[in-house]
Amino acid sequence: MSEVYSASVTAPVNIATLKYWGKRDTKLNLPTNSSISVTLDQAHLRTLTTVSTGPQYLASKLYLNGHEETLNKPRLVAVLMTLKELRKEVEAKDPTLPKFSDWNLLIVSENNFPTAAGLASSAAGLAAFVTAIAKLYQLPQSFSEISKIARQGSGSACRSLFGGFVAWEMGELADGSDSKAVEVAPKSHWPDIKAAILVVSADKKDTSSTSGMQITVNTSDLFQYRIKEVVPKRFVDMKDAILKKDFNAFADMTIKDSNSFHAVCLDSTPPIFYMNDTSKSIIKLVNLINDQSIANGEGLIAAYTYDAGPNAVIYYEAKNEVKILSTLYKYFGELPGWEALDDALLAGVKSVEGPIIGEDAFAASDFDVSRLILTGIGEGPQDTDVSLIDEKGEPKFLTA
Amino acid sequence: MSEVYSASVTAPVNIATLKYWGKRDTKLNLPTNSSISVTLDQAHLRTLTTVSTGPQYLASKLYLNGHEETLNKPRLVAVLMTLKELRKEVEAKDPTLPKFSDWNLLIVSENNFPTAAGLASSAAGLAAFVTAIAKLYQLPQSFSEISKIARQGSGSACRSLFGGFVAWEMGELADGSDSKAVEVAPKSHWPDIKAAILVVSADKKDTSSTSGMQITVNTSDLFQYRIKEVVPKRFVDMKDAILKKDFNAFADMTIKDSNSFHAVCLDSTPPIFYMNDTSKSIIKLVNLINDQSIANGEGLIAAYTYDAGPNAVIYYEAKNEVKILSTLYKYFGELPGWEALDDALLAGVKSVEGPIIGEDAFAASDFDVSRLILTGIGEGPQDTDVSLIDEKGEPKFLTA
Repeated sequence: MSEVYSASVTAPVNIATLKYWGKRDTKLNLPTNSSISVTLDQAHLRTLTTVSTGPQYLASKLYLNGHEETLNKPRLVAVLMTLKELRKEVEAKDPTLPKFSDWNLLIVSENNFPTAAGLASSAAGLAAFVTAIAKLYQLPQSFSEISKIARQGSGSACRSLFGGFVAWEMGELADGSDSKAVEVAPKSHWPDIKAAILVVSADKKDTSSTSGMQITVNTSDLFQYRIKEVVPKRFVDMKDAILKKDFNAFADMTIKDSNSFHAVCLDSTPPIFYMNDTSKSIIKLVNLINDQSIANGEGLIAAYTYDAGPNAVIYYEAKNEVKILSTLYKYFGELPGWEALDDALLAGVKSVEGPIIGEDAFAASDFDVSRLILTGIGEGPQDTDVSLIDEKGEPKFLTA
Repeated sequence: MSEVYSASVTAPVNIATLKYWGKRDTKLNLPTNSSISVTLDQAHLRTLTTVSTGPQYLASKLYLNGHEETLNKPRLVAVLMTLKELRKEVEAKDPTLPKFSDWNLLIVSENNFPTAAGLASSAAGLAAFVTAIAKLYQLPQSFSEISKIARQGSGSACRSLFGGFVAWEMGELADGSDSKAVEVAPKSHWPDIKAAILVVSADKKDTSSTSGMQITVNTSDLFQYRIKEVVPKRFVDMKDAILKKDFNAFADMTIKDSNSFHAVCLDSTPPIFYMNDTSKSIIKLVNLINDQSIANGEGLIAAYTYDAGPNAVIYYEAKNEVKILSTLYKYFGELPGWEALDDALLAGVKSVEGPIIGEDAFAASDFDVSRLILTGIGEGPQDTDVSLIDEKGEPKFLTA
């Protein structure tokens, strides 16, 4: 019988409301500015990762969604080395522990959403990767400490170490030891935050975020002002809005920061475009929703944000869910995704008579959207009993 | 027999290479930053305006492209008042002159290009309007002085008072008396500058430039950095590149400034989008052309710029005309506009074998372009014998 030790966790996707764009140190993934994100519900978007170790593994291996992937990437090598170093410290303190640090690892990982959709899967993936190994290794470090390791694998992954509202503090030190994720507020502080993701049809993006952000760092004049003047103030103000549950201020800054991020992309040489004409039409739709709520004295009730791709994420509060979703239903009612709503809510959404905004505001061709993901704020990484590795230490793929 | 005095001029379109975006005084049309433009050839784009005056006109009237338009707009009223004041000074010095300043005006104006195309027709129109009246009134003021009056009618119109390369110096004074156009270099300095305009199919723009620029002034964080840090340096450097006929530097700054202008539009609340997916594909095409010329050690050979709309203007030098136009011909050969080339050049453009850039770089659907305008650098306002008003003082429409 083989000796197999394993651990399984799930980790969430996070979508920034104050964007990470630019590294001051590309090797350590140290950012040029602090950022803030909302962690999304793992019921809809999560990575499940099982790791196992044992003396019988002849080499370390990684499987993602049923396919073997190389572990021989500098960032992954660095992450694994750091985790093994920490395990060695644990083993040094308690010599009775098995010598995991000498053994190879089998890592099996699956997403519960299509990776092709461009939904920040690398953040959830790296967070699950690091958290699962940390759990297997029984590391005593806090999640903020573990977030620094995840950060080295994929910058924004560090924010997936927490649920609710998360800040990635850029830090100042050259070794990155103060560049880590911290909780701004747990999900329980403001559980009513919902998110509608409109998955926009698109070819693969022209510019990866890794190369795109360094093009911006190296060529955009406006970028320097963004990181020095705009973001530091917004970082303080956005945390304040979250703590006060001031949705109007939160939405205003979320929208402005998305625009600012895409503006510095456009100010780069060559210019980087992540939004397309559909993205712009969705912005217009959200603006019309807000124009009406502002006219009603309610302030902003929907906040769009776009990462390095054309997909829209729209944050809103549960109290406005029927209002917002019934508007989206007029334009996107035929698309997959509505089945995520419970029957009563879906009936409510469908029952709203007439369009909330002008019938002629859009043409059908304005929206090239393939599906919706209706979700909300969620918790950080979770332990799970579901394992992707069987008792013999072999991968078992749930969704291959 | 009626007593009719008339004068006719033509005035050119200008396309900025350093963009005007933002007013510090909306009444006087005083800009937040200096700008630079290239005046385009009137053979392809110009406004012809005839003005006449005489005691028999019972009211002042304006006809644009065969349709009567109101003169009762604050900007036009201000422009006309200023011109009449200057005429009064002329009359005071020479009492034998007819008292034009007491009489009404008939103004008849026609463009030689479709106004709907969004081709900065207001600049040419206002420049022709002011220049024709100044000529009728025999005003002694220099073109720079006259440009201040045109500026009050439509900011960028002041740059259409000169040919070649033109700077609009923002000035510092509150009354705008130092905010005027000056010649950077005449057409004869660098006559080889060509321009290909790709007219992009689009619905009417959502945001007029007049309101758009004030949205940016009032809401964009990055805008303040643009006007205080980015543009002042670029204003000096671009004039220098023009004087040195350094196309690489001129193109680099022209491209960067177009991007910077659209970036601050995107950084506005609500964000303003003037470029669409076709505009972005044309940027990619120009970048591919330049990538190849850079690889050949030639530096940048094409410079795109976009005004407040999706149309692309591509500047290049005559020596690269066959190279650039043959690439455009691959994608836009079926469109109207090529007839502007002489037969030998068109044969040369058609004879280039194979695509200059990869066959698979674009899909047909990437380009929704309706026509090309192939033109080049041109002269400032010109006197003309063609009149749009007959001997009886009645409008005669050439193209109504």
